[in-house]
Amino acid sequence: MRNSREAKADSYFSCSDSERAAFEAGIKLGTIYHQFVGVPLSIENVGTLEKAIEAGSKVQPFVEEVKVRIDRSMLKKKRGEYDYISLTGDMLDVTLTVKYKTATVQASMKYVKDMNYPLMFFKKLTVER
Amino acid sequence: MRNSREAKADSYFSCSDSERAAFEAGIKLGTIYHQFVGVPLSIENVGTLEKAIEAGSKVQPFVEEVKVRIDRSMLKKKRGEYDYISLTGDMLDVTLTVKYKTATVQASMKYVKDMNYPLMFFKKLTVER
Amino acid sequence: MRNSREAKADSYFSCSDSERAAFEAGIKLGTIYHQFVGVPLSIENVGTLEKAIEAGSKVQPFVEEVKVRIDRSMLKKKRGEYDYISLTGDMLDVTLTVKYKTATVQASMKYVKDMNYPLMFFKKLTVER
Amino acid sequence: MRNSREAKADSYFSCSDSERAAFEAGIKLGTIYHQFVGVPLSIENVGTLEKAIEAGSKVQPFVEEVKVRIDRSMLKKKRGEYDYISLTGDMLDVTLTVKYKTATVQASMKYVKDMNYPLMFFKKLTVER
Repeated sequence: MRNSREAKADSYFSCSDSERAAFEAGIKLGTIYHQFVGVPLSIENVGTLEKAIEAGSKVQPFVEEVKVRIDRSMLKKKRGEYDYISLTGDMLDVTLTVKYKTATVQASMKYVKDMNYPLMFFKKLTVER
Repeated sequence: MRNSREAKADSYFSCSDSERAAFEAGIKLGTIYHQFVGVPLSIENVGTLEKAIEAGSKVQPFVEEVKVRIDRSMLKKKRGEYDYISLTGDMLDVTLTVKYKTATVQASMKYVKDMNYPLMFFKKLTVER
Repeated sequence: MRNSREAKADSYFSCSDSERAAFEAGIKLGTIYHQFVGVPLSIENVGTLEKAIEAGSKVQPFVEEVKVRIDRSMLKKKRGEYDYISLTGDMLDVTLTVKYKTATVQASMKYVKDMNYPLMFFKKLTVER
Repeated sequence: MRNSREAKADSYFSCSDSERAAFEAGIKLGTIYHQFVGVPLSIENVGTLEKAIEAGSKVQPFVEEVKVRIDRSMLKKKRGEYDYISLTGDMLDVTLTVKYKTATVQASMKYVKDMNYPLMFFKKLTVER
């Protein structure tokens, strides 16, 4: 049984399950990008940060799975005080699954070289019939 | 004529125009919330911040219009050094329009008292036929 | 006369005026960097964003003046949907003045090429005697 | 031996070790607040987030130790989709140690009820002689 806050939320939408799932997936990717870009980053904390981003995303509505991978090619072991960088959107490789009733969206964010842009897109969108 | 980065982006989607528009709208609301929550806020800077959030949102893909209104009821004129607060999601009232090809989504974020939650939702979703 | 919240805050410090001013200046530069890095940016909104960062900083305790300049060399006029970038720390050139009782600190953040790092530092620190 | 980026950074300061340490401590607390306020939060991810904030802070210059504790009193086990909140500054209890040459600052952030404000302050400031 769906609880009352979920029913209340539903009353603010008049659309298909897949449109709702697409919207919810967009919110989660926008959240990840704009919440975490800027975090101080080195080899020492990259794994911990990936886990925190995943765990934070799972807390949001309708998220079933999340996988976050941060590009390590620009990271090095910290020797001097200034040997670290800030997380940028281009370093993020994210795939998450949002399920709303009959619709499931697998959405991703990754740097697309041809566009020089960290694109958010759909890997897969399915509707149960 | 759509330029090549837009065509490249389109190649990462296999969905209806309205699903794409819904996704893009979700990204923009997630961006606003998670980018700007935390900004120091008083009566002195609230108008400037509303304008900056709107202007930043308009820069993103497929955004046609944005209206941001921050609740002023908790703000006061700054007399002492500590007379200010941080922007929270509950104070945000946002409506934006995303248009992708035949689909137009008017999406909003506002605090819903019954849910004690700053809900993101659709005001209107239309598809040209 | 200083108000009671300021006196209360003072009771949490046991240090010189210049150490307090230095601490307060550090907070403000950390705030600017980590609050605003990630904002969507093009020629269209760069001026509005500079103003909002300045206005937000002035709201914080003991800030007298703030000047924010964002490097425009990577920005272009938006023609296509994806013609924008995200603000990075390297683009920020900030100078702010914090005054606490007898101490005044002029602190800055700017990209230092030799370090490949957006350094936060003191331009000037003076104590009235 | 201090490396060249550290020496380069030092050349941008003309102040006492304790003023520098105070400045560096302020930057770190400002970073934590403005980077992480807004993260989606429930009992499920609070521990992971504490660890990620600590690990990110340790990556920054001159940080020796960091302890982050997020107030759990407002968090509950997630049963419904909307059973979570966003991290606010008032929930943060942070203590970190910054050491710059002869100076050591132990700085904290915690919600001060009398001020209704998440205050950043010094727990201890010592200079070796």
